[in-house]
Amino acid sequence: MQIATTIAEVRTQVKAWRREGLTVGLVPTMGYLHAGHASLVDRAAADCDRVVVSVFVNPTQFAPGEDLEAYPRDFTHDCAVLEKHGCDLVFHPSVEEMYPPDASAYVELLSEMPKQLCGKTRPTHFRGVCTVVAKLFHIVTPDKAFFGQKDAQQLAIIRRMVRDLSYDIEVVGCPIVREADGLAMSSRNTYLSPQERKAALVLSQAVRLGQDMYAKGETDAEIVLHAMRAHIAAEPLAKIDYVCAVDNETMMPVLALCEGTLVAMAVYIGKTRLIDNFITGA
Amino acid sequence: MQIATTIAEVRTQVKAWRREGLTVGLVPTMGYLHAGHASLVDRAAADCDRVVVSVFVNPTQFAPGEDLEAYPRDFTHDCAVLEKHGCDLVFHPSVEEMYPPDASAYVELLSEMPKQLCGKTRPTHFRGVCTVVAKLFHIVTPDKAFFGQKDAQQLAIIRRMVRDLSYDIEVVGCPIVREADGLAMSSRNTYLSPQERKAALVLSQAVRLGQDMYAKGETDAEIVLHAMRAHIAAEPLAKIDYVCAVDNETMMPVLALCEGTLVAMAVYIGKTRLIDNFITGA
Repeated sequence: MQIATTIAEVRTQVKAWRREGLTVGLVPTMGYLHAGHASLVDRAAADCDRVVVSVFVNPTQFAPGEDLEAYPRDFTHDCAVLEKHGCDLVFHPSVEEMYPPDASAYVELLSEMPKQLCGKTRPTHFRGVCTVVAKLFHIVTPDKAFFGQKDAQQLAIIRRMVRDLSYDIEVVGCPIVREADGLAMSSRNTYLSPQERKAALVLSQAVRLGQDMYAKGETDAEIVLHAMRAHIAAEPLAKIDYVCAVDNETMMPVLALCEGTLVAMAVYIGKTRLIDNFITGA
Repeated sequence: MQIATTIAEVRTQVKAWRREGLTVGLVPTMGYLHAGHASLVDRAAADCDRVVVSVFVNPTQFAPGEDLEAYPRDFTHDCAVLEKHGCDLVFHPSVEEMYPPDASAYVELLSEMPKQLCGKTRPTHFRGVCTVVAKLFHIVTPDKAFFGQKDAQQLAIIRRMVRDLSYDIEVVGCPIVREADGLAMSSRNTYLSPQERKAALVLSQAVRLGQDMYAKGETDAEIVLHAMRAHIAAEPLAKIDYVCAVDNETMMPVLALCEGTLVAMAVYIGKTRLIDNFITGA
């Protein structure tokens, strides 16, 4: 497994693969890899001849006051995970390699889509995500790119960016991976104290509650969301950011649940903001 | 020479060329081609194995009230010009092919650069330019892209976009091509009445005046700009939008001219807005 810290190294390797007629998959990550990331790498290795994984804590998707500095990092462990799961090239650039001091070009959706859900409290987040993913697309020129369904709004926005900007890249969404007790895997779970770790189960419990209600025939979004919110609110350490039902392509709120509706939530457990979601019928 | 109206056709042809190991040059145009465009195609044909020219009047770079509908079009003539100058593939998409009805992804520079010069009166123009050029980059995946120095701010912005978004594309700027009497070639020259056509010479005359003053040692920007403005203002049909001296990389105003300073102007001749410029010492 090759480790590249410069854009030039990545280009050289990808071009060599292209000359051999090999396909390339990209898994963009911020590192501190867990089983959710590993499942993306597995899928990329199954779908593509070669797999590039980027490990880069992208500053442009953090707002001032968010956890950019605190975000957990362990590149040695990341490399061990990636080697085991069939990654061929790790791209681990510095901030300086990715962003010149006067960098000013951005990619963003000028629609309501990035303003919904997480966008309400993180108004510049998805602009940073789109910009860094666009850069990674230009550096790696993958045939396919792999993203987790846990970040459902990110996945929908990247799909839209790829369509609207005419990228010749297939975006593959991969299922949420959960701990044995249901908690969705997240690098931010490391922030949780033992007590908060237990409290964090209200998210996946609310997911299961909503899934069950829909399975039993409840399609009124407010009734389902109200039950989910009530379950979360009963946990003293939990503070709801949002629990919403939206169209999974546009991220716009819906009143009635139907097959494929995205039900998504963001909840603070202590100071840690966690997200989880499900797609009805999936 | 192949004519493609769909993105899929372009991709198929470019991929076939890539398999043969051929390099590809892109010349983005809005059609109604003149000798300036032809010089870009000539340069692309000299530099690259295959040349793609896009002919697309891009709606996202026009604001309401600008000349989107009036913009001159003559695709039959364009094809004759392109055939003669060694274009291999013309990409002539419909607006619908380029922009889905709910397209919302944009590329832009969030700096002062696109707000200077033409950006003062056309605040959304360069966002439209960056977006369509990014799309053309993703569709054609050229090795090199060719732009005219006449649109100096556009060229500088595209260079910055390519740098900041890590495109593996060389941007080649090509000299202004002028009519025998000095008028810079522009598709918009067709708007001019015979009387306006004569009046339009004040732009290239002002360029020569500025060049001469700099050649004779005048480096005070205000003195040079004042003389240029006075020359233009003496023409009753001319109305100055701007005459400015700026750093050619950042587009920020400079007080002293030095080698490589961009001196640029936009002037209304009647209702037609024309631009011209020179680079000191070039």
